[in-house]
Amino acid sequence: MKKTIPAAGEEKLLPQIHGPQDLKKLNEDQLPALAAEIREKLIGTVSETGGHLSSNLGVVELTIALHRVFNSPKDKIIWDVGHQCYTHKLLTGRQEEFDTLRQPGGLSGFTRRYESEHDIFSGGHSSVALSAAYGVASANKLKNKKRYTVAVVGDGAFTGGMVYEALNNAGRAPKGLRLIVILNDNEMSISKNVGALARYLAVIRANPQYFRLKAKTESVLRHIPLVGKKLANGIFRIKTELKNRMYHSSTLFEDMGFRYIGPIDGHDLPHLIDALKGAMEVDVPVLLHVHTVKGKGYSFAEQAPDRFHGISAFDLESGEKRMSGPGFSDAFGDFMVRAAETDRTLCCVTAAMGLGTGLKTFSERYPERFFDVGIAEQHAVTFAAGLARGGLKPVFAVYSTFLQRAYDQIVHDCAMQDLKIIFAIDRAGFVGDDGESHHGLFDAAFLNSVPGITVFAPATFKELDTCFTQALYHTKGSVAVRYPRGMQPPLPADYTPGEEPWEIYGDPDADTAIVTYGRCFFEAVKARRKRRAEDKQTLIVKLMQIKPIPNDAVKRVLGCRRVFFFEEGQRFGGIGETFADKLFKYDYTGHYRNIGVEGEFSAQNTVEGLMHLYRLDADGMKEILDDE
Amino acid sequence: MKKTIPAAGEEKLLPQIHGPQDLKKLNEDQLPALAAEIREKLIGTVSETGGHLSSNLGVVELTIALHRVFNSPKDKIIWDVGHQCYTHKLLTGRQEEFDTLRQPGGLSGFTRRYESEHDIFSGGHSSVALSAAYGVASANKLKNKKRYTVAVVGDGAFTGGMVYEALNNAGRAPKGLRLIVILNDNEMSISKNVGALARYLAVIRANPQYFRLKAKTESVLRHIPLVGKKLANGIFRIKTELKNRMYHSSTLFEDMGFRYIGPIDGHDLPHLIDALKGAMEVDVPVLLHVHTVKGKGYSFAEQAPDRFHGISAFDLESGEKRMSGPGFSDAFGDFMVRAAETDRTLCCVTAAMGLGTGLKTFSERYPERFFDVGIAEQHAVTFAAGLARGGLKPVFAVYSTFLQRAYDQIVHDCAMQDLKIIFAIDRAGFVGDDGESHHGLFDAAFLNSVPGITVFAPATFKELDTCFTQALYHTKGSVAVRYPRGMQPPLPADYTPGEEPWEIYGDPDADTAIVTYGRCFFEAVKARRKRRAEDKQTLIVKLMQIKPIPNDAVKRVLGCRRVFFFEEGQRFGGIGETFADKLFKYDYTGHYRNIGVEGEFSAQNTVEGLMHLYRLDADGMKEILDDE
Repeated sequence: MKKTIPAAGEEKLLPQIHGPQDLKKLNEDQLPALAAEIREKLIGTVSETGGHLSSNLGVVELTIALHRVFNSPKDKIIWDVGHQCYTHKLLTGRQEEFDTLRQPGGLSGFTRRYESEHDIFSGGHSSVALSAAYGVASANKLKNKKRYTVAVVGDGAFTGGMVYEALNNAGRAPKGLRLIVILNDNEMSISKNVGALARYLAVIRANPQYFRLKAKTESVLRHIPLVGKKLANGIFRIKTELKNRMYHSSTLFEDMGFRYIGPIDGHDLPHLIDALKGAMEVDVPVLLHVHTVKGKGYSFAEQAPDRFHGISAFDLESGEKRMSGPGFSDAFGDFMVRAAETDRTLCCVTAAMGLGTGLKTFSERYPERFFDVGIAEQHAVTFAAGLARGGLKPVFAVYSTFLQRAYDQIVHDCAMQDLKIIFAIDRAGFVGDDGESHHGLFDAAFLNSVPGITVFAPATFKELDTCFTQALYHTKGSVAVRYPRGMQPPLPADYTPGEEPWEIYGDPDADTAIVTYGRCFFEAVKARRKRRAEDKQTLIVKLMQIKPIPNDAVKRVLGCRRVFFFEEGQRFGGIGETFADKLFKYDYTGHYRNIGVEGEFSAQNTVEGLMHLYRLDADGMKEILDDE
Repeated sequence: MKKTIPAAGEEKLLPQIHGPQDLKKLNEDQLPALAAEIREKLIGTVSETGGHLSSNLGVVELTIALHRVFNSPKDKIIWDVGHQCYTHKLLTGRQEEFDTLRQPGGLSGFTRRYESEHDIFSGGHSSVALSAAYGVASANKLKNKKRYTVAVVGDGAFTGGMVYEALNNAGRAPKGLRLIVILNDNEMSISKNVGALARYLAVIRANPQYFRLKAKTESVLRHIPLVGKKLANGIFRIKTELKNRMYHSSTLFEDMGFRYIGPIDGHDLPHLIDALKGAMEVDVPVLLHVHTVKGKGYSFAEQAPDRFHGISAFDLESGEKRMSGPGFSDAFGDFMVRAAETDRTLCCVTAAMGLGTGLKTFSERYPERFFDVGIAEQHAVTFAAGLARGGLKPVFAVYSTFLQRAYDQIVHDCAMQDLKIIFAIDRAGFVGDDGESHHGLFDAAFLNSVPGITVFAPATFKELDTCFTQALYHTKGSVAVRYPRGMQPPLPADYTPGEEPWEIYGDPDADTAIVTYGRCFFEAVKARRKRRAEDKQTLIVKLMQIKPIPNDAVKRVLGCRRVFFFEEGQRFGGIGETFADKLFKYDYTGHYRNIGVEGEFSAQNTVEGLMHLYRLDADGMKEILDDE
């Protein structure tokens, strides 16, 4: 039963949209007003919840156009990364929960399969949407389902090699695939976009006429009279050669087998809708190049889109972050700036995370030693290996979750060659509101299997300095230094950060020991204090070097009747299991319990909430120690 | 002290080449004779040792040209994968050991840093050379060293996204980088090359004139007389537009910021040498497109280059393999062909390894359900996730060592979304003569950390069938089935392959237990027999499901005084450590020893040699059990 939504003067449109079907009932001239309402909602909500603002403001019109033209969820719209899906969520029945965005138990800041039938693929990591979309489209083709699959991919994500792997495949797919790739070109990845492709896209944007040349030039040629045989031949040759060029070497995307349409103004709704309808008519894969403005409609975000890429809650009027103090990223950035002053071989590599990893000052002070390679973690690691082979000391600053993408390069290009590359692993452990795709819960486990690499887990800023000094100037081979998101917890009054690979704290003669590392140490201190109040003693063994585990640290607890290992990370394959194995090696026959994240993905929540959930906080620790 | 090598009539040239400096002393007209000698040496040696033949025969002239023009090791030549480096080894002082190629303690079949100062980067995995070369070149530029860095990359490797990530970076590097990329285009990766880029290269090869158009067209235009204003304007506009096209959209590589030179006949030495010298004069990164014939000079290899890509020893006259019998790859291929007959949702994905993984028949019988994505493991996994999301059952057949490249996609695109993707992991465990870059020693450990995935390790063909049936039709979520290279060992007379996740064999009341999986099981059987002869009893617990470890298997050994876990894989993060942790969970207080590859890369050797070295064979097991 179709009914038209009244174009009421003051009545809000957005609350009337409960799904794509309602969007289709609006008149086209109502859409700009809807876009304005959506922007208002986005800015208001994100200022409270934090989240990805700039990217979402950029795709308001694009999302409206997609849901007007396509028939989701039968047609599949796959958002790369998924951090630009807020409008999509608002238009697909999730308005009422929208203020729960990124909150414990609330809506995810990314697409999530379990959240809606309109979320085709769970996002989080970059450059995967085209591969997934090509898979879905191929399945539909095999099953003779006449459905469209659309992948929305940012120009930043086009710096990742997977996009190219997928283009290379899909560009030679059999006809009738019904695959449409939207290149959402906002001239940015997270920071200013890098690389040759970005320059190339700028050329297209600046000179769209090159790529609409065919028709024009041919029309000119048709009007040239034939004067003299030689001239005629000359003209003929030009025509032929021009035609060949037209067919064989237009845009890079056409070279890769895609039909290129663009560039389209991504904020011009009628133009967008026409282009999408046009793309549906083409029988080969289409690349639709849409030019959007990141942060569109919120002046602070338009002016500094990188700062509003992924942000915490902020003040609506001033655009200022509600922030607290320097975190581990800042401590790392400070260290690198200081170290680079005296060590001219030191250089930094980042995969589009210069700002987030604390390297802003470094990049300004030492631009020639700062390499932002784009969202290309694999290349980043092997490039760093090349720098090392060339005699430099490369430090690759990366979030734990994204380093997952370079496991093979760490094994094969760093460790196997025994090269010195330093991995500065930020956001190790729980990250909080970004949820399951972004927690840094795997690095300790996957690095555990890499031969010859040393892994440090500093718990304090001072220890971070110690670890990097050690990594750069003393430890052989590749070294990883991993540290959490956020600030250093308050130090216990009786604790002085040490410089040793491991140390003890608490009651040296206790028959119960906690072994742990990183942020959990502070919880262990609190747990001991609580137990102390009940006259129970606890020895704490704090590891700063978690791979290889110092043998003396294992020997230190052999006399304890009970040993508990707390790990803010995946338990299977993790450090706690290696510790268990080592205990057996020393013929330990006491009681050992290993507590971590046991083979599951951790939902979005506050860091404190997650520490509590997995019994890695003081309360959880105490409970476990008291229970057993 | 320069001295010219005499151009002796019958005298062999190759034995006189002890390094690149000797090559430079030859006259140019001696080079074809040298090339012929090298080919003879390559075919003769590889027929004995096995190895990569086709790719090496294809680059004989290219390698000679490179070492004539550049000054290695000051100039750095980096071979992608490194499987085409045999001529490079022959010309850089390694002739005399050449018959030790791929033998225990002998020359590697790949470039290896420890082998020669001319081996800049250790190879093995595809598509990394350009990243490494860009790193080395950047380091040289920062240090003001005026040296060239050359990356030799096959067209097959260009299907891997890392090449594109590196192109995107290097193409926008500051001037004066002195980086030359040789695209060694033999129209193949391992099998026939796939994807849009391959088609694009074919267009260039077939029509080199398009890409030499600029000069020609401009000269034609210069000769057109100006007749009438309208015509003149028309001509002017064509000229301008043509010029713009010339500068802005020539080859895909020029779009990416590289100067393109090519295509060059890769067997025409003077032409090659000229082109390389030309490339040295350009002040931006150069892509030199060289067209070679894989298998050049050995008719069997030219006709079937895929069969001679990586081969075992073969008969020189017939080109036939000295082979033995069907291996696990064949058993897998047979299973898939049978299963696909009744299950029309079943499909196979491979990353250029259709032949090696046993999928030849499948690909011929079900071409529409067979997807070769090129050397693009990351894309392969996410594409498979897309197929699964579209309702199909994708099986990704891949070598263990190459799956390392898709760790993040397994975590993020498969496991996190709880999608059913089957990983058929071939070459798990030691592979023998390909050495450290190719052993499948990491998959058990890195998969161990992935939530929700199930991992099977069949020891026999029958168990392989059981595991895949289980994986496809019974187990929830993603499943990996891992099996070794080569044939099924002879089955013990009293052993019937089972269908259970774990089972016992041997002496049920023994106080000593061996726990193991896969190929090691057969060694355990032999070790037990040896101990039996000495009146010692051994219980064997054989795991077919290694993740999650069945709890009952752990409980079964709690009564044993001594438990030994033997694992053909990395020990840290591996299954044996998880087993240790589980023993503690059940308060086991006996003696546990975990034996595996302890944090090192394993050199090339026979599989038997490696099993012995790591004490994973019957002798080693017995020794350990007797010792402790």
